Order: sequence, then C-alpha cells, then structure tokens
Amino acid sequence: MITGIHHINFLVYDLDTAVSRCSALLGGTSFEYADLVDRGVRTAKADVGGTWLVLVQPTDPEGTPGQHIAQHGEGFFLMSFQTDDLAQQIECCSAAQIQSASAVRNGLDNWRVVDLSPTDFFGAQIQLTEELPTTIRPH
Amino acid sequence: MITGIHHINFLVYDLDTAVSRCSALLGGTSFEYADLVDRGVRTAKADVGGTWLVLVQPTDPEGTPGQHIAQHGEGFFLMSFQTDDLAQQIECCSAAQIQSASAVRNGLDNWRVVDLSPTDFFGAQIQLTEELPTTIRPH
Repeated sequence: MITGIHHINFLVYDLDTAVSRCSALLGGTSFEYADLVDRGVRTAKADVGGTWLVLVQPTDPEGTPGQHIAQHGEGFFLMSFQTDDLAQQIECCSAAQIQSASAVRNGLDNWRVVDLSPTDFFGAQIQLTEELPTTIRPH
Repeated sequence: MITGIHHINFLVYDLDTAVSRCSALLGGTSFEYADLVDRGVRTAKADVGGTWLVLVQPTDPEGTPGQHIAQHGEGFFLMSFQTDDLAQQIECCSAAQIQSASAVRNGLDNWRVVDLSPTDFFGAQIQLTEELPTTIRPH
C-alpha cells in the first residue's frame, strides 16, 4: 500500500549552494548531510511537511545520478512513494504493468528503495521506499 | 512560511491511460478530473498522504504545459510548496534570491499559485500554492 510521497530528489551541481538557497526558501530549515557512496553522491535532506526534500550532488560521473546530471543538467531527479511493504508493493505494481527497473537497494538512513520503469509510468522517474526498523537494515 | 509539498504535477499524453495506471499503483485511489482552461489542460488529481498528485494532459499546444510536453515529452512538470501566506512567501523567496517567474494566478479549486524562476532554484520547476477560502477566490 502507498501511504504518501516519501521523498523527492533534485540533482544539483553544488550541494552547499543549493542547501543555502533552499534553506532560505524554507525559512531557515536545517538540512541533514549524508554521503551515499554506492550511488556516488553527496546528499542533504530536509523534512517538508512529512516529505523529505533531498538535494543530491553527484560525485561519481559514472553513477546513475552522475550520468543523469551530465545529460539533463540540474533539476528534478525522482519521486519516491512511501510503502509499508516493499515486496508486496512491487507485486502490486507489476500487476498494474509497472515493472521494477532495479534491484532493491539501501537508500539513505534505513530506507530500502526500488526504482520503477519510467517507460511504464509516463516517463517519470518513480521509486518506492520502505523504512525499515534500523535493527534489521540489510548490509 | 512553507508548510509542506502541496502538489506535484506530471505531464502525460493521455490522461485516462495515466489515471488508470496510477490508480492501480495507488491501490484503486479515485482521481478527481478538472479542466483548467486558462492553462490549456485537462487534469486529474489524487491525494497521496496529504500531497496532491496531479496528472496533466495539455490540450493547447501554445500553452506553457503544451510547449513543455512538446519539448521534453511526458514526465515531471513541477513541484509546488504549500504556504499559508502567498504574498509574504513571495517576499521571503525574493530575499533568498529566488524570483517569481509569473503573476499570481488561479490554479485548480481554490488554489492561488505563482511560479518561481527555475534558474534561481537549480533548474527545477518550483511553484508556491496558497489555498484560499473558496468564498474569497478571485475571478
């Protein structure tokens, strides 16, 4: 079951500049920084009314985010729906002819994520996220 | 003050197909249809955990959404932050060097919206929305 919009990612060239501007827009909101080495990115996120706004600076030009910013420049990268049961939701999507486009992987914090096929969802980069109890996060 | 992500818009070629697929993804959620003649679009929206997911089919190739889909194809169009005071938030954005890129206009329902300059917000199409009491909606 989809319970909300979990996070929205924007690719940026310079994380500190983007955080500074976005924080000002949000009235001084603090951002939490984290590297996601497997994806080749530095990130900073802020909770905006229950949805994470995630700014993503690629550090590896060969990674998926790095390739995307090279092709498309800065801007929207992906939107991730929140689910309380990732495996079940993947099956539900498949039944709706929306296929997974990646293996399930670790995201930030205790997030487990999977990409959906953009060609099955009118061109948009869509993802599913389940937040696991941190005690059972896979490695 | 920004209080959340008010809505996220995706451009689609065929609204009924997109609604059907998206509704299935969301577990059967109903979408509300509405035309927005001034923008040259048909729309359908669903509440996803407090954020409106809006599917937008351009019907006027000369309108801004129509021009965008002609240039970029289907996919993400814009994200709109919710504010409880649009005029004040526009001033706050301006102070943060994020300028307005449109006049304030009516959106769907009782939404009053204004576009921000994508060049001031790392390339992303960002908007502000204030929901007015329906009794004072401008015409």
